[in-house]
Amino acid sequence: MGQATALTRNETGIETVCGILKQQFGDRFQTGAAICEQHGHTTTWLRTQAPDGVVFPADTAEVSDIVRICAAHRVPVIPYGTGTSLEGHVNAPAGGISVDMSAMNRILAVHAEDLDVVVQPGVTREQLNTHLRDSGLFFPIDPGANASLGGMTATRASGTNAVRYGTMKDNVMALEVVMADGSVIRTAQRARKSSAGYDLTRLMVGSEGTLGLVTEITLRLQGIPESIRAAQCSFPSIDAACQTVMAVIQYGIPVARIELLDALQVKAVNAYSKLSLPETPLLLLEFHGSEASTTEQADAFGEIAAEHGGSAYEAVATLEARNALWQARHDAYWATLQLRPGAKGISTDVCVPISRLAEAVTRATARLDDLGFIAPVVGHVGDGNFHCLLLVDVEARDEVEKANEFVGWLADMAIEMEGTCTGEHGIGQGKMAYLGRELGAATDVMRAIKVALDPQDIMNPGKITLR
Amino acid sequence: MGQATALTRNETGIETVCGILKQQFGDRFQTGAAICEQHGHTTTWLRTQAPDGVVFPADTAEVSDIVRICAAHRVPVIPYGTGTSLEGHVNAPAGGISVDMSAMNRILAVHAEDLDVVVQPGVTREQLNTHLRDSGLFFPIDPGANASLGGMTATRASGTNAVRYGTMKDNVMALEVVMADGSVIRTAQRARKSSAGYDLTRLMVGSEGTLGLVTEITLRLQGIPESIRAAQCSFPSIDAACQTVMAVIQYGIPVARIELLDALQVKAVNAYSKLSLPETPLLLLEFHGSEASTTEQADAFGEIAAEHGGSAYEAVATLEARNALWQARHDAYWATLQLRPGAKGISTDVCVPISRLAEAVTRATARLDDLGFIAPVVGHVGDGNFHCLLLVDVEARDEVEKANEFVGWLADMAIEMEGTCTGEHGIGQGKMAYLGRELGAATDVMRAIKVALDPQDIMNPGKITLR
Repeated sequence: MGQATALTRNETGIETVCGILKQQFGDRFQTGAAICEQHGHTTTWLRTQAPDGVVFPADTAEVSDIVRICAAHRVPVIPYGTGTSLEGHVNAPAGGISVDMSAMNRILAVHAEDLDVVVQPGVTREQLNTHLRDSGLFFPIDPGANASLGGMTATRASGTNAVRYGTMKDNVMALEVVMADGSVIRTAQRARKSSAGYDLTRLMVGSEGTLGLVTEITLRLQGIPESIRAAQCSFPSIDAACQTVMAVIQYGIPVARIELLDALQVKAVNAYSKLSLPETPLLLLEFHGSEASTTEQADAFGEIAAEHGGSAYEAVATLEARNALWQARHDAYWATLQLRPGAKGISTDVCVPISRLAEAVTRATARLDDLGFIAPVVGHVGDGNFHCLLLVDVEARDEVEKANEFVGWLADMAIEMEGTCTGEHGIGQGKMAYLGRELGAATDVMRAIKVALDPQDIMNPGKITLR
Repeated sequence: MGQATALTRNETGIETVCGILKQQFGDRFQTGAAICEQHGHTTTWLRTQAPDGVVFPADTAEVSDIVRICAAHRVPVIPYGTGTSLEGHVNAPAGGISVDMSAMNRILAVHAEDLDVVVQPGVTREQLNTHLRDSGLFFPIDPGANASLGGMTATRASGTNAVRYGTMKDNVMALEVVMADGSVIRTAQRARKSSAGYDLTRLMVGSEGTLGLVTEITLRLQGIPESIRAAQCSFPSIDAACQTVMAVIQYGIPVARIELLDALQVKAVNAYSKLSLPETPLLLLEFHGSEASTTEQADAFGEIAAEHGGSAYEAVATLEARNALWQARHDAYWATLQLRPGAKGISTDVCVPISRLAEAVTRATARLDDLGFIAPVVGHVGDGNFHCLLLVDVEARDEVEKANEFVGWLADMAIEMEGTCTGEHGIGQGKMAYLGRELGAATDVMRAIKVALDPQDIMNPGKITLR
């Protein structure tokens, strides 16, 4: 987890920049303690490191101006979407300016015939899907939070639909980015594929604001399927549920969602969302396609589940019930926090090759039991990705230490299984210690790119540990 | 097309490196004129620029040694797969060493349960699929040529299946790469998704050997569908065929292949592959899925085609007939060359948003007619990508000039339509003039990355015009 980074504050620069921004942006530049605190990282147990000021640009030209001003005085620039990242991405360890994109929330163009849309970074995923509702199209990527699309781009987010529709890497077609010198680039055109030079789109997706600030995003859209079926299925053990998932993926059933909740997570969700799901390991599924295809998929799933001791496949009949179920799934994080009021949540995020899924989840839960943590498990298991949410009293040093040890142990296990320490949350501050263990010399190449594109280290410094 | 690049030969360095490689690699280092010529670019009208020597490494450690030796003496290193690229990627404008990967052709691991495979770069796509045949899995990316997977990675190749399965960008999971200083990195683990730092995998895919030499590739595999149906459908005009394609994509029919051949291309294919297809604009299709799903898809396609004046949907009944049809499609390039013996082929490769497809193809063919070119059109039209293959007498200066003008005109039209000058062939030498027009200031960022990762400009210099 969070390593101490020896970043120093450039007090003179910060003071100068705050003066210029105040003059230039008036009320759209704020330095009050409350707003600055709120723009530091507040979601998890990581310590808040507030910026010195928060600016609300209205367009790309203003973002470019802000970056030029900060660059001239070597002051950090930290992009801010909705503040829902879990790894300290919006913290300001050396102070600096938080660039809040909430006013850049326009949907610039819906190209229904090309199945794409152009948005500003402050648009949230729910806002986009509400806007698209009548077009017959939707944007599939859904992290738990109603995150901004800029933030989702920056962290290479995914969520429950990724098993079928991919992650942000697969759904961002092009970006407009303000670079560290204030210059504005466009990474690609709107063609569905291209071989024109380096893939700057994918380089920027997941770069966590450390290479540039995303100011416009072209996203791929999907047609709303003719038929959507949801299902729930209970299992006698985590292993049985995971074996079922592995078989579903290996048989190539194109599930749109296949989510695991362990018994404790189901209990938390029942309490928080007022549901009455059976409190044993549970898979929640969704099938997309034609009527015939979703029936076929559901039947094939039912057969596999039965072979592994799953309960009878239970269809979720109404749209209302389906929405309630997925809302409950998305609220799992908040539901979990209710299990131990006052505790902070530390979410792990490992992702392993699907063949290692059952072993990984089983070993993780066994160790959590041994250590005595209250820590439900939930996962986008079709991708091999699962989260243990450890509830920790962050004032109790031994508990924090034990949690740290577990997170490290789990990351090492995932890496040893040829998996990753982070499937979708990103590195930020929280996972810096594991990037080198996972990718070794490749981090030198990342560092060289960082130095080349941000020689002053002003773009979200102290994240991904590249300097 | 090809710009003159002012690269100078480092004669002393080249001589020294050739001496060292001869001593170290013996017969696996060749400097004969014939083999050097054969390792320059020979596929199209671009001038051959032979390397000074060709080395055949057996493993990653040897590739690393070769790069270290070349780096110590500032000598260019040019990776070579099967030599089928169309844009001069393997040329050696400043001389140097061609690194022929043909001996690195082992399939290192098939992880059937994870739907992935690890290969060396010299493995060809046909070799891989032959190897996989009994596993129930296949690798979908299929450029016309039986290219090496290293070369396909380097050019971000795609082909007929990309409309369903994506391009190399979507199917390469991880890479081992020898960097410009000889160091060896691994860009990712084998998890299906990851948010761990910069996406070096995607940065390397399509970098055309200018950032590093790929020595190991982890590829995503697909299950062979339960049902595969092929179909052909003739149309009264290019416009009618393209309007059909646009509707198919917009309705979200998950076609696995949807290929356009214009009347002249059909004629060429008939002659070369001894077929008797009706010589009007033609769509060739393939549907993948369950029996029910492929029937549904084919029916839905048939209805759309009929609305646009297409002939009755004609199923290709036998596996043999299907294979013959796709082989003929893959041989289209060679078939076209027979239309004008002695002429060289100049293939365009623009890709436009699908809504602009009919207009783009119609305008392109009209202009080719005006200019009097023999130039069949073939396209992966489901992606908005199509090729005009201009048959040119490269000794006739006015013809070459006219072809140049057309290629530039077409690239500009595609760019103006928010498309790209190259959907899948890459920039190489042939498309260097258009990259800046397409991506403007983004090329400065590409250049900064190139300088950071290859400060001596020894990695396939003179390609993508980044220096």
